[in-house]
Amino acid sequence: MTIADTAKSKATQEGQTRNEEIFQTAAELMVQRGYAGTSMGDLAKAVGMTKAGLYHHISSKQDMLLQILLHAMEELESTVIEPAKRIADPEERLREMIRLHVRGLFDHGLETALLFPERRHLEPAQQQVVGQRIQSYRGLIRETLRELADEGKLQDLDINITSSHILQTIAGIARWYRKDAGVTEAQLVEQTVNFNLFAILKVS
Amino acid sequence: MTIADTAKSKATQEGQTRNEEIFQTAAELMVQRGYAGTSMGDLAKAVGMTKAGLYHHISSKQDMLLQILLHAMEELESTVIEPAKRIADPEERLREMIRLHVRGLFDHGLETALLFPERRHLEPAQQQVVGQRIQSYRGLIRETLRELADEGKLQDLDINITSSHILQTIAGIARWYRKDAGVTEAQLVEQTVNFNLFAILKVS
Repeated sequence: MTIADTAKSKATQEGQTRNEEIFQTAAELMVQRGYAGTSMGDLAKAVGMTKAGLYHHISSKQDMLLQILLHAMEELESTVIEPAKRIADPEERLREMIRLHVRGLFDHGLETALLFPERRHLEPAQQQVVGQRIQSYRGLIRETLRELADEGKLQDLDINITSSHILQTIAGIARWYRKDAGVTEAQLVEQTVNFNLFAILKVS
Repeated sequence: MTIADTAKSKATQEGQTRNEEIFQTAAELMVQRGYAGTSMGDLAKAVGMTKAGLYHHISSKQDMLLQILLHAMEELESTVIEPAKRIADPEERLREMIRLHVRGLFDHGLETALLFPERRHLEPAQQQVVGQRIQSYRGLIRETLRELADEGKLQDLDINITSSHILQTIAGIARWYRKDAGVTEAQLVEQTVNFNLFAILKVS
């Protein structure tokens, strides 16, 4: 790597950190006030930029929401889906997916998870882009449940409905979790894995 | 019952049906546009009233949201909590609570369930009123799990986290269910009961 490459890489990294900060602050504000209740002016103020400066990064409020959701899906893909896909055993793969997804909620902001229902405010084509990536994650969960069924390990449960129930116990954490309620992240990870595995595994 | 009583009762009933219609339409609109994105004018138009006519029923948009959520909690109390409280056996009580709650989602509108996160837009005192009634329902689930633990029937699970997971599998249905996806209400009821009971019951 040349010095120029290193400098460029550092700038890219700083740019990414800055984008991450903007997305995080914007997500918090949109969750607080609702998508419709948040203006580009509010967003600029929250991230300490002028409106013109913010428009340099994103073209509209819709674009901001789209970028936040795509960024969240990229995080999910690199920190949950890719590592999980490398695990051959379906039971261990599912445990690891739940574990990593719950941890990711804490690492990348519970607020972003709360923002996903707001994707109804996006244009149909944008909704489709986000929707496809969510469906691809659901597909991996369904595929894992199917493998467990083939191994004779799955309870008598419908694979489609069960994959939704599992996802709701994870995403739902963003809705009920309060920092001051005395539940630790480690407990949540363990309990969410156990609850779901108890639910789906046949007792031999 | 006198004729006057009957007439009054009929008028009350019609008034309630009308209120129910207003709440349902308002809930759908608020879910579609977000709370902040819905005006009293939008609401009046959607329910076929003048703004003045609508103000005769409710005093503000906040009041509308509060009335919708309180009405939903009253439905939950009369159709889920009260019947469940009459069941002595904790396992059967929990089964029946999940069954009735999932059915209630379909009977009283999936949209209303989607509106609960919007209670952050209410005044603190109003949020507390809604919050207390939700807590009372969660309390009944926790109490039921505690009874199962006392009977030695509960898996090694944390009662607080587990009660939240159960509730998220139910409320979560409003977020992922689509009428055209080939899943029937009866299947959803059965699968949601089974998923949760498989999760929490120790296998003897």
